[in-house]
Amino acid sequence: MLTLGELASHIGAVLSGDATILVRRVMTLSKAGPEDVGFLSNPHYRRHLVHTRAAAVILGTADVAYCPVPTLVSENPYLAFAKATALLNPMEPAPRGIHATAVVASGAEIDASAWIGPLSVVESGVRIHAGVIVGPGCVVGAGTSIGTGTQLIANVTLCHGVQVGDRVVIHPGAVIGSDGFGLAKDGERWFKIPQVGGVIIGNDVEIGANSTVDRGTLEDTVIEEDVRIDNQVQIAHNCHIGAHTAIAGCVGIAGSARIGRRCTIAGAAGIAGHLDICDDVHITAMSMVVQPITEPGVYSSNLPAKPNRQWRRNVARFHHLDAMARRLQVVEQQLATLLKGNS
Amino acid sequence: MLTLGELASHIGAVLSGDATILVRRVMTLSKAGPEDVGFLSNPHYRRHLVHTRAAAVILGTADVAYCPVPTLVSENPYLAFAKATALLNPMEPAPRGIHATAVVASGAEIDASAWIGPLSVVESGVRIHAGVIVGPGCVVGAGTSIGTGTQLIANVTLCHGVQVGDRVVIHPGAVIGSDGFGLAKDGERWFKIPQVGGVIIGNDVEIGANSTVDRGTLEDTVIEEDVRIDNQVQIAHNCHIGAHTAIAGCVGIAGSARIGRRCTIAGAAGIAGHLDICDDVHITAMSMVVQPITEPGVYSSNLPAKPNRQWRRNVARFHHLDAMARRLQVVEQQLATLLKGNS
Amino acid sequence: MLTLGELASHIGAVLSGDATILVRRVMTLSKAGPEDVGFLSNPHYRRHLVHTRAAAVILGTADVAYCPVPTLVSENPYLAFAKATALLNPMEPAPRGIHATAVVASGAEIDASAWIGPLSVVESGVRIHAGVIVGPGCVVGAGTSIGTGTQLIANVTLCHGVQVGDRVVIHPGAVIGSDGFGLAKDGERWFKIPQVGGVIIGNDVEIGANSTVDRGTLEDTVIEEDVRIDNQVQIAHNCHIGAHTAIAGCVGIAGSARIGRRCTIAGAAGIAGHLDICDDVHITAMSMVVQPITEPGVYSSNLPAKPNRQWRRNVARFHHLDAMARRLQVVEQQLATLLKGNS
Repeated sequence: MLTLGELASHIGAVLSGDATILVRRVMTLSKAGPEDVGFLSNPHYRRHLVHTRAAAVILGTADVAYCPVPTLVSENPYLAFAKATALLNPMEPAPRGIHATAVVASGAEIDASAWIGPLSVVESGVRIHAGVIVGPGCVVGAGTSIGTGTQLIANVTLCHGVQVGDRVVIHPGAVIGSDGFGLAKDGERWFKIPQVGGVIIGNDVEIGANSTVDRGTLEDTVIEEDVRIDNQVQIAHNCHIGAHTAIAGCVGIAGSARIGRRCTIAGAAGIAGHLDICDDVHITAMSMVVQPITEPGVYSSNLPAKPNRQWRRNVARFHHLDAMARRLQVVEQQLATLLKGNS
Repeated sequence: MLTLGELASHIGAVLSGDATILVRRVMTLSKAGPEDVGFLSNPHYRRHLVHTRAAAVILGTADVAYCPVPTLVSENPYLAFAKATALLNPMEPAPRGIHATAVVASGAEIDASAWIGPLSVVESGVRIHAGVIVGPGCVVGAGTSIGTGTQLIANVTLCHGVQVGDRVVIHPGAVIGSDGFGLAKDGERWFKIPQVGGVIIGNDVEIGANSTVDRGTLEDTVIEEDVRIDNQVQIAHNCHIGAHTAIAGCVGIAGSARIGRRCTIAGAAGIAGHLDICDDVHITAMSMVVQPITEPGVYSSNLPAKPNRQWRRNVARFHHLDAMARRLQVVEQQLATLLKGNS
Repeated sequence: MLTLGELASHIGAVLSGDATILVRRVMTLSKAGPEDVGFLSNPHYRRHLVHTRAAAVILGTADVAYCPVPTLVSENPYLAFAKATALLNPMEPAPRGIHATAVVASGAEIDASAWIGPLSVVESGVRIHAGVIVGPGCVVGAGTSIGTGTQLIANVTLCHGVQVGDRVVIHPGAVIGSDGFGLAKDGERWFKIPQVGGVIIGNDVEIGANSTVDRGTLEDTVIEEDVRIDNQVQIAHNCHIGAHTAIAGCVGIAGSARIGRRCTIAGAAGIAGHLDICDDVHITAMSMVVQPITEPGVYSSNLPAKPNRQWRRNVARFHHLDAMARRLQVVEQQLATLLKGNS
């Protein structure tokens, strides 16, 4: 437990209230009790503020007046909440060593402070640095390098020759370095193009559960530092993702796409291959990008759901939109002629 | 093998025909032979009825007249078919015990009637109840609880602190309890929000291959009883899915969405975060829900494919639809003025 | 290393230049150095040709004039590039035998030239043919058969009773033979339909990382020869995919769909269930097919992203498209009446 004073100091918030009150955890406004710190950053939950029983609430200046309990005011309440949660939920000390059931190739270099969990496989030529945690059931392919403090949670597959930076977190079921989908037509048959590039993953990257990052065909697939990738994201061969870009669940990025820095790609969006997206681009959910984007901004091609009956009527019209546009042109011309005659 | 009489009685169907005929399995109408029971529930396959060589056919009243062989008439022929299949394909008796290659932490409580398969990991503080089957290659994280008769087929990952109900089936590659995608902006960098909630999965839930269910940030992600989840579905942190809801393959549900009871969400649909969908809502395939839904019914935003040439012409017009609407307004006004002048 | 002469002969290209020059690898035009062979097949990268420092470039006739270095001219430069890459990157000789930590059921038949990797499980009744490679962490379910030269890279799950052909490659995290999503309504509850069919995978098929192929309900799910499946593809129960069809990442195909031969389905497209798509159909990315397709050709229903402000204006109009069409009809009728009166 921490005092509100300690918490305020750590998260950089201004406390109004008794600095000696002890708190145990961060909790949502509606569930927080007298030993909890609540928080308000999404206005969607503002209605819960007046009823909160929290010991204190992390919030922005604008909401202070409506808060019935002590406040921890921050310019960035969401970040302050995140820091408070981290502070009140310290990571458990990790084990170190190699579990007796792990299969480690001779010649793999494993730092003494790293942990290789049960039933994991570490192939030849692997270098595992200080403080790395390889959870249960992981496969670390030949020649792979894993940087300081990186965690593979469980059942992660790193194929051969993948380079992972420091403080990376890779969630269960993720596959890094699988072959790209490279095929050449040979008559009606397909000829597989060997995928001989690698994957380079920068520092502080996070890769979600069951996401996949293919190796490059000839050069490397590159994920720059602090890129954040949610679950079930597919990143194809030769992609290059710029630093600080965040990619939400179920996004697919086709081969050789280059995404800039500080972009956000919302859930289930798709990016076509062989195109560049500049820095600071934001793609909304379920949108499809098929042309290069050279200007920062928000881009969309998604359609919000409507009652099916109404939707179907509009879609039926959509399939005749070109004809409709032509009819409008005819009307405009006829009307122009009429108006000319009348004037 | 069973007699048609036994089968009719078990599945609650009315038999017209020889009750002593023996049948071995259920098969499709077009493939069924003289030891098989056929079935007809989808009208798409009605054309196969008159040619069937099945011993008998499960069907609804309306199709009886066209059936050349004995009939098993049911008000719900699809359910009757399902029951017949279950009856003719009884589950094999499961093994019990702990395979010699499984890694089980001391202190894990495992019922004597449960089975822990080869090369699975059961971490500390786990409680596994009667008749549970943990297939090969699974990871069961610390503090997890698995209810009576639940099956993890193979290579399933349950992260720490997940609570799974009774008679749940989790298919290979599924990941339950991975960290949610919680990030706060700290300048241009991301600050990871610790995900300290859990996941609660009700009784009779099924979760498909390579699906992912993230743990809650502070509270729990909740999947109520009898929810059915297909393959490659992504359910983000803090979601709450109501009982008897079915979610088809490739659906993505963003964080803190609340889905009602008895909903169906068809394949590859997307649900935005922080919204409520009421009971008895049906979302059609590939639709995107971005606003709360408060009325039961069918909702859509999908577009059916057309020949590309036609499609492209309509899309080109779509990108000028606002201008087109303005032009229509101008035409309407000009015409109104004209008509007024003429009257 | 190979001489340009040897390379030209092997890949069926016409060399213009010194046949004795030695090359080491294939590389992209912009990165190729004096020991590398470059290639040009995608016109997107033509701008790099004049600056290349490659020893030689594989290209088509049309580009020869712009190439500053020796040329390897091919009618199909992409195929020639693929063959060159394969030639210069020969597969390493595979190990053979059974790793000491693999768990192999007695009675499984494993060819002496096959390899069963560490921490893999091979269940009873399995037949593994010559030269098969089962990588680390795989599960090969009871009664499965794996044809000559097939590779399961790592952490692959084959459920029971799956038949895999020769020279198939299955990438990490893929799940073959999981239960289909078969449910019958029983009041408000779901009744699971046992999935008792199998999966048949033809020769020369490739299945990407974290893709899923469900077993059939009664008959088999069938993937014909030389079908190529990218990552995170979902193929539901009872599907039948014709030979030489290629399916890109994140595609979902619903149950009982039949896809023809030589089709291509681009990324994140969706195919509804219980429909037939004929041979030689090409579905563009993120399109949704809900009706049978009986004519070869290109089909689409995707919408390219635009700046959000412009997009939202057009979508707002779209939701009134039916009304707009009716208004246009009114205008047309009024105008026709006017024009009639004027004439």
